[in-house]
Amino acid sequence: MFIGAQVSLYPMTSDFVGVITSGLAALTPYQDKLRVETDDISTLMVGAPDPLIDAIRDLFAATARRPDHVTMHVTLSRGCPGEPDDPSCRCDTLARAQDQSLEDRKSLALAAVRAAPDLEATIDVLGQDRHMDEIYGCIDFLKASGTFVKPKNFCTRPRGDAGVVFETVRQAFLRFGPAEGHVTIDLTASANSPSLG
Amino acid sequence: MFIGAQVSLYPMTSDFVGVITSGLAALTPYQDKLRVETDDISTLMVGAPDPLIDAIRDLFAATARRPDHVTMHVTLSRGCPGEPDDPSCRCDTLARAQDQSLEDRKSLALAAVRAAPDLEATIDVLGQDRHMDEIYGCIDFLKASGTFVKPKNFCTRPRGDAGVVFETVRQAFLRFGPAEGHVTIDLTASANSPSLG
Repeated sequence: MFIGAQVSLYPMTSDFVGVITSGLAALTPYQDKLRVETDDISTLMVGAPDPLIDAIRDLFAATARRPDHVTMHVTLSRGCPGEPDDPSCRCDTLARAQDQSLEDRKSLALAAVRAAPDLEATIDVLGQDRHMDEIYGCIDFLKASGTFVKPKNFCTRPRGDAGVVFETVRQAFLRFGPAEGHVTIDLTASANSPSLG
Repeated sequence: MFIGAQVSLYPMTSDFVGVITSGLAALTPYQDKLRVETDDISTLMVGAPDPLIDAIRDLFAATARRPDHVTMHVTLSRGCPGEPDDPSCRCDTLARAQDQSLEDRKSLALAAVRAAPDLEATIDVLGQDRHMDEIYGCIDFLKASGTFVKPKNFCTRPRGDAGVVFETVRQAFLRFGPAEGHVTIDLTASANSPSLG
C-alpha cells in the first residue's frame, strides 16, 4: 500500500517565509521515518500513518502556537490504485481492521482519541472523507469524539487542541472505509483566525 | 443534483483581511445565481457549474493580480448522495454527457479550454479528481490542455492564466466521471509565490 499526504502551510502574515521555515523544524524527528519532498506549492510526505499524522500535527501545532493566523491544507491518501506498494507505509491498524466490525472500529477510534496528548494549540479543522459506504459510521464517531462542532456541506468540522483533533483525523483515516481500498481525506486546519467568535 | 464548493482564500500578507474583503467584490455579479454562505473558515457556494466556476475564477484572479502571494483552496462536489436535489444546479453539459463517449468528451473539453478568456492573472493549480474509472481519460485531457506542468502524487498540476486554468478545471469536473455520479475535485490555486522559479 502507498500512504501519504500533500501538505501546504499558509501563514497570513507578511513574514510567511519565516513562519514556514521555523515550522518545518518540527519535522526533524520524523526525517528518518518519512519520505519528504518539497516544491513551491506543497510538501509530499510518504510513510506509515503513525509518523505521518504525528509529523503533520506537530508542524501545524508549532505554527499555531504563534500569534499569527495560519491555515494548513492536507490531502491524505491511502491505497491509491495508481501508486506502487511501499513497504515503509505498512500499518498494523489497517491490517487488523479487515477483521473488525464497524462498531468495534468506532470504539477503538474513540479510545485512541481519548488518549491523545494535549499540545496546547487550539485549532479548527474542515475534514472531508469521501468513502460513502462507511461515512455514516465515521460521522457517528466524529460526533462522539468531543471535537465535533457542526456539519458543513461536503465536510465535517472538528475543533480542539491539536493533539485530540489530529488523533481524530488519524482514526477517521484508518478505521473507516475498506482496509485495502482507496480512502482520501481533505483537511483544512485553521488557527488564530480573527473571524472566530 | 447538488453542485457546489467550499472556497477559502489565503493571502500571505499581514493585510489579509483587506485582500479577502476586496477580492469578495468579484462575486457581486454572481450573487443572484449562486447561494453563498460564509463563516470563519470557508465560503460555501451552491449553483450550476457555469456561474460557480466563473465566480471562483474571478475571485482568485482579482486577488492574484495584486502583488502579494495568495493561495486558494476549493473543494468542488457534484452529485453527493447525502445532499438534496437542487434545481438551481441544473447543468446541460452534464445532462448531455450521459450519451457521449469518453473520446467525444475529451474533444469537447479541449475545445472549451481553447475558447477560455485571458484574465491576465498567471496561476498554478494542484487539482485532484478522485473518480478512478475515468481518471486516465481526464489526465489525457489535462496533458493536451496546454496547462499541464507535471504529475504529482495524488494530483495533477496545471499552470497558466486564470482563464484557461479554471476552464480546464470546469471541463475536468463536468466531462469525466459518471454524469449522474458523485465526483469531487480538490484544488489549490497559487499566485505570486516567491518560491516559483
